[in-house]
Amino acid sequence: MHTVDLIRKKRDGERLTAEEICWLVEGAARQSIPEEQLAAWLMAAWLRGLALEELEALTLAMRDSGVVLNHSALGRVTVDKHSTGGVGDKTSFLVAPIVAAAGLADAMISGRALGHTGGTLDKLESIPGYRTRLSPNEMHGVLARCGCSIVGQTEDLAPADRTLYALRDRTATVESPYLICASIMSKKLAAGLDALVLDVKTGSGAFLRDETQAAFLAALMVATGERAGTRTAAVLTDMSQPLGRFAGNWVEIWESVELLRGGRHAMSEDLREVSLVLAGWMLHLGGKTPSPEAGHALAGEKLEDGSAWRAFRDMVAAQGGDVKVLEEPEKFHRPAFRRTLRAARSGYLTAMDCTQAGWAVQRLGAGRERAGEPVEAHAGLEMHAKLGMRVEAGEPLCTLFAQEEARFEEPERLLAEAITIAEHAAKTPRLVKEIITDANKNKFLEFARER
Amino acid sequence: MHTVDLIRKKRDGERLTAEEICWLVEGAARQSIPEEQLAAWLMAAWLRGLALEELEALTLAMRDSGVVLNHSALGRVTVDKHSTGGVGDKTSFLVAPIVAAAGLADAMISGRALGHTGGTLDKLESIPGYRTRLSPNEMHGVLARCGCSIVGQTEDLAPADRTLYALRDRTATVESPYLICASIMSKKLAAGLDALVLDVKTGSGAFLRDETQAAFLAALMVATGERAGTRTAAVLTDMSQPLGRFAGNWVEIWESVELLRGGRHAMSEDLREVSLVLAGWMLHLGGKTPSPEAGHALAGEKLEDGSAWRAFRDMVAAQGGDVKVLEEPEKFHRPAFRRTLRAARSGYLTAMDCTQAGWAVQRLGAGRERAGEPVEAHAGLEMHAKLGMRVEAGEPLCTLFAQEEARFEEPERLLAEAITIAEHAAKTPRLVKEIITDANKNKFLEFARER
Repeated sequence: MHTVDLIRKKRDGERLTAEEICWLVEGAARQSIPEEQLAAWLMAAWLRGLALEELEALTLAMRDSGVVLNHSALGRVTVDKHSTGGVGDKTSFLVAPIVAAAGLADAMISGRALGHTGGTLDKLESIPGYRTRLSPNEMHGVLARCGCSIVGQTEDLAPADRTLYALRDRTATVESPYLICASIMSKKLAAGLDALVLDVKTGSGAFLRDETQAAFLAALMVATGERAGTRTAAVLTDMSQPLGRFAGNWVEIWESVELLRGGRHAMSEDLREVSLVLAGWMLHLGGKTPSPEAGHALAGEKLEDGSAWRAFRDMVAAQGGDVKVLEEPEKFHRPAFRRTLRAARSGYLTAMDCTQAGWAVQRLGAGRERAGEPVEAHAGLEMHAKLGMRVEAGEPLCTLFAQEEARFEEPERLLAEAITIAEHAAKTPRLVKEIITDANKNKFLEFARER
Repeated sequence: MHTVDLIRKKRDGERLTAEEICWLVEGAARQSIPEEQLAAWLMAAWLRGLALEELEALTLAMRDSGVVLNHSALGRVTVDKHSTGGVGDKTSFLVAPIVAAAGLADAMISGRALGHTGGTLDKLESIPGYRTRLSPNEMHGVLARCGCSIVGQTEDLAPADRTLYALRDRTATVESPYLICASIMSKKLAAGLDALVLDVKTGSGAFLRDETQAAFLAALMVATGERAGTRTAAVLTDMSQPLGRFAGNWVEIWESVELLRGGRHAMSEDLREVSLVLAGWMLHLGGKTPSPEAGHALAGEKLEDGSAWRAFRDMVAAQGGDVKVLEEPEKFHRPAFRRTLRAARSGYLTAMDCTQAGWAVQRLGAGRERAGEPVEAHAGLEMHAKLGMRVEAGEPLCTLFAQEEARFEEPERLLAEAITIAEHAAKTPRLVKEIITDANKNKFLEFARER
């Protein structure tokens, strides 16, 4: 097989066989194919797209470039939820213990803050002692005890994805729905899941702001998951403003703990609802309820009866975290400085550039500029208003937290620019925009292709 | 400037500035941009195409990556002809001495056999002693004395093209009209020409078989040459069968010498006519005649009065070649073995796969499999019939020449397959299909873009 022939094929819009795609992925993983050839193929794939058969082959070859976990010894159906990334998105801390409390196992392999979006691992590491680097055996032990475990990706999970991602980053081939799908799904399928629910964000804070594009990516992931034998559904959710009350690291754990312990807060209602929808689908696909609606109800029960909270606390303890700080989370929140941003005029919150808001959180110290940099546990943002709400001039819009006073200047400016206050109320975005399943996925594949 | 931004721009179909394109070309020449980034950009350019402004910037940046020759000290208008490559294409040996005899200078920088097509340098080197590697000063001396000089490309001429071509070869980004145009024109413009005539081949033996595609490439080259201040025209000529009587190395010098010395041969008439059309345009663009038709007539005179022959002989002598072998070229033709291919049935020659015929010549030993391999001077092919002619079963179609008898098997099969003999005569292709100039180029640019 000659790599140049496979580049030519994709360049000319032809379909590669599974064998040919395996050759490319193995060549990438073993570094036997020069990067310039992989780069040319990736750009051709970016511009020509991939057929579902090619996408399946690419995803499976990437999955099989490393270890594939197997949790069947647990005797529980193993599920997970994956989000495409947002601001203030802390649903993981709710759905994992909820489904664990309902008898499923959530084997969640998460990532770190990237660009304007936060990272589940960074948030968890704001809990003193919490270890995100577990061996597969350690993770298995936590799952057996608690029903859920949230850890970082190990080196041996889908290593071809790491190689290809680094190359895509340098060659402007990141933002392809096909390549994003293969990257996400190869890692998720390597986690050994029976079912997977994807939370695909749309709106001003999402990587794919356009709803049609987001739905297309979602449909590709659903198709690829189902072809690989994992029951998969995707929920298109709104990311036109930070999800919930807080965005940052510890503040997000705090908000999650509050909900897990049965607390309610007006600013957290959107987070609670998205989490219940996602958990409901996980419970349904995991075979616990006959419908996602019944799953939603069961998830609500697990929040209210305290069993989800116990599962979360047990997981934190099992992974070395200090559970005492979870008891009074507001007391553990110790930012050195606070700053309040107030409404410059009276009116309705009609729009927000949520990516700008995400950058504000990052610049406050909660995120990072480059991979490997440390993040600050107590930096972040508290929202006092949501889209659609009325505010009066001088009322607080949000509170900023940082460890250094000099950190406030840019985030304050970014947030002031990001928030639009208008005289008349505008329509607020729906929280859940679409559910994409194996049954209806073709509609979204066709629709996006026609554009 | 960030290379990844320039890749993204081209990927998204946006237009790069001249400064941005210079950055890429300089990065390629200095190896400061990694090959995987150049490869991604090249694939994006392959699939998205280039605007004329981008193409001009790319061509000039590639030209300026090395030395740019200047022959103004000659006191003669400097012209050249470039062919996109064919089988039996020996017009260079006719047009260069014709225009030299008419008072122009032809500074011709040529190439070697590539794939199924022959190489001007390989053909010239079948003349004992002929040196194709001259320094710019030596070439200048030959031009001053003889009016024409045919040499190989030196390392310092458009070095960015060499780097990029090697990369394109590995990344399936060779066959782009834009990138082919930049590659050809950067080298031609570095040769310091006042005028340039392009012989763009179409038909079964051409790299671009499709006439619309060939016309599009021709129009791109004309536009780029004119933008760079070199008067440029392109002639679309037929390559549905070998041009002239012979294809190989020495046999092509032999046929050229025969024509230069005023000889005529029924099988060489097409070669003679194409050469006169090309030389006519060179003479016209070089300011020697008021029209290309007058140039055609003047070129014919230079063939007939022996002045072109003298210019050729002087050039061969000046470049170290043995002119005695030119006196009786048929006697110098010393292949070890000959084989005649005969018509299997009676009828008309209606079609030929001329690329197959070219591979036959290559396999006989006249071409090479890989760069750097030697070629055999006396291997080749003599055609006894042309498209449109009637042959009777058992009559010779062509004679094959080789240095080893084992060389015949594959070429014989290839040729037998390549030639179609049918009961009824078919329309024969026109020799000159189109003339593309600065005045009419837009028609061909638009036409091809619409497809």
